[in-house]
Amino acid sequence: MESDFVAYLRDRLDSHPQLRLGPGDDAAVLQLDPPGECVLTVDMLTDGVDFLLDRVDPRRVGRKALAVNLSDLAAMASRPLGAVVALALPRQGGMDLAVALYEGLLPLAEQHHLAIAGGDTNSWDGPLVLSITLVGQPTGRGPLRRDGARPGDRILVTGQFGGSILGRHFDFPPRVDEAITLHDRYELHAGIDVSDGLSLDLSRLATESGCGAVIQLSSVPVADDAHRLADQRADGVSALDHALGDGEDFELVLAVAPEEAKRILACQPLDVEITDVGQFVAEPGLWQIDADGQTKPLAPRGYLHEFD
Amino acid sequence: MESDFVAYLRDRLDSHPQLRLGPGDDAAVLQLDPPGECVLTVDMLTDGVDFLLDRVDPRRVGRKALAVNLSDLAAMASRPLGAVVALALPRQGGMDLAVALYEGLLPLAEQHHLAIAGGDTNSWDGPLVLSITLVGQPTGRGPLRRDGARPGDRILVTGQFGGSILGRHFDFPPRVDEAITLHDRYELHAGIDVSDGLSLDLSRLATESGCGAVIQLSSVPVADDAHRLADQRADGVSALDHALGDGEDFELVLAVAPEEAKRILACQPLDVEITDVGQFVAEPGLWQIDADGQTKPLAPRGYLHEFD
Repeated sequence: MESDFVAYLRDRLDSHPQLRLGPGDDAAVLQLDPPGECVLTVDMLTDGVDFLLDRVDPRRVGRKALAVNLSDLAAMASRPLGAVVALALPRQGGMDLAVALYEGLLPLAEQHHLAIAGGDTNSWDGPLVLSITLVGQPTGRGPLRRDGARPGDRILVTGQFGGSILGRHFDFPPRVDEAITLHDRYELHAGIDVSDGLSLDLSRLATESGCGAVIQLSSVPVADDAHRLADQRADGVSALDHALGDGEDFELVLAVAPEEAKRILACQPLDVEITDVGQFVAEPGLWQIDADGQTKPLAPRGYLHEFD
Repeated sequence: MESDFVAYLRDRLDSHPQLRLGPGDDAAVLQLDPPGECVLTVDMLTDGVDFLLDRVDPRRVGRKALAVNLSDLAAMASRPLGAVVALALPRQGGMDLAVALYEGLLPLAEQHHLAIAGGDTNSWDGPLVLSITLVGQPTGRGPLRRDGARPGDRILVTGQFGGSILGRHFDFPPRVDEAITLHDRYELHAGIDVSDGLSLDLSRLATESGCGAVIQLSSVPVADDAHRLADQRADGVSALDHALGDGEDFELVLAVAPEEAKRILACQPLDVEITDVGQFVAEPGLWQIDADGQTKPLAPRGYLHEFD
């Protein structure tokens, strides 16, 4: 029952220095540091689309629901502060499921010093739906936006791409600390996280910035998972195709001026490798340089929520 | 498609002085006034529980999804600032549905000077789910909490109760301005909004405050809808029973010291009537004074999300 669940939650949650009022009232109260800008993001996950509840430990689902939101804050180079968690639970086994979801997300929240500020726990006859909203704060550098890339900027990416469906889409580390470190030490022009596909999210960043982007295909860091998936499926979709279009890599794509990019690549200041995969150009659209050195259009590929 | 929908939304939304960055980036950025405390609340509505999509104009559903959240901010006597809207849409007709939901909620957002800061629009094979998260700011008086009622305080309520299922649960006015006015002009000890039932939500407020509450049954303002519903159903449930347990009235229940309560009742500073329905007492539990002047226990009734 909902009140039992709130009791569990209050007992389970640590105190947080900026959480003035947590679960149990009509709303939560969070204290922001000056100058009082807050960054707000929401992501909703549904059974059947983002996970298959009958095939996965619900703790991994809870972790993922928080991690995708943290990845959005990473894309803004902002610090996590508080979260509210809304659940639509199947009636049967809802309490155990809710506890498992929280047991999955709480360690990640603690790791990122994130307060679970409140939530709304519902039951219904439908499948599991989770919606998490995060409040964060920009650093002194301000939020990192999508719309600041300039022609000539290099395209830098963290990590590797493709085949996350083999498991990484649950267990990926959101690049929050990495984004804040880079934003603090270097001048970044723009950033986005790869949720729907490297080529699709890169094209979104370019579009928001009013420019185009050219990917050097030979430079794209292809994950081992992408190779494994291409081998397993043997359907003619190459590992590189998976890297360009699979999505749910939750790595960062950054726009950085050429000299600054050189410094970042020389220092490699993160635990995860940073790679230069191309450059932004004045001509709108997405382009590829293939193995023969030819520049051709590249159709953005990735996950789209289709509805009509 | 999702990108078409974001384009619709960007075009449809007015600018807001405190919204630094709206829909289209990885997260939204809101500017809070000093001292930088934010109030955070989320409510999720699901088809089949909170509304029946095949029987209601979806604009009323969109309005309700926002209004229930505004009511939570009212219960905190806090000003609405920004909202993020997460949707799980049926694939068929999803675009029209999403637009209708927004067309229903936007006028209410405008009325309360609320910025639609962003959202997450998903499609799936399940029924409609909406989850709205609001960020607000307390006034100079600070947030109004549930846990400040003291024995001897009067129980004041706005408006009337019962039978909201006949239509008022969609079209109720969230008492945001009313709560801020009262919190500004008078000393309120505690407050809650009635979402699940007058007796249930009152008992929650009393429990959080570590005290009990006695309702004078003859003083409860029973809505015309409660009488109509009792007449229609003719099932032995009285209009008063409906007023005590129906829920979704979204009126305010306030704890106020006796002398201050007298001033409020004498002035009636709101457009909606304020009524004294009883008092808080040291003895924990919920109590009723019936028509014969007898004090007896009253079982809290209202809507509970049952899951096990």
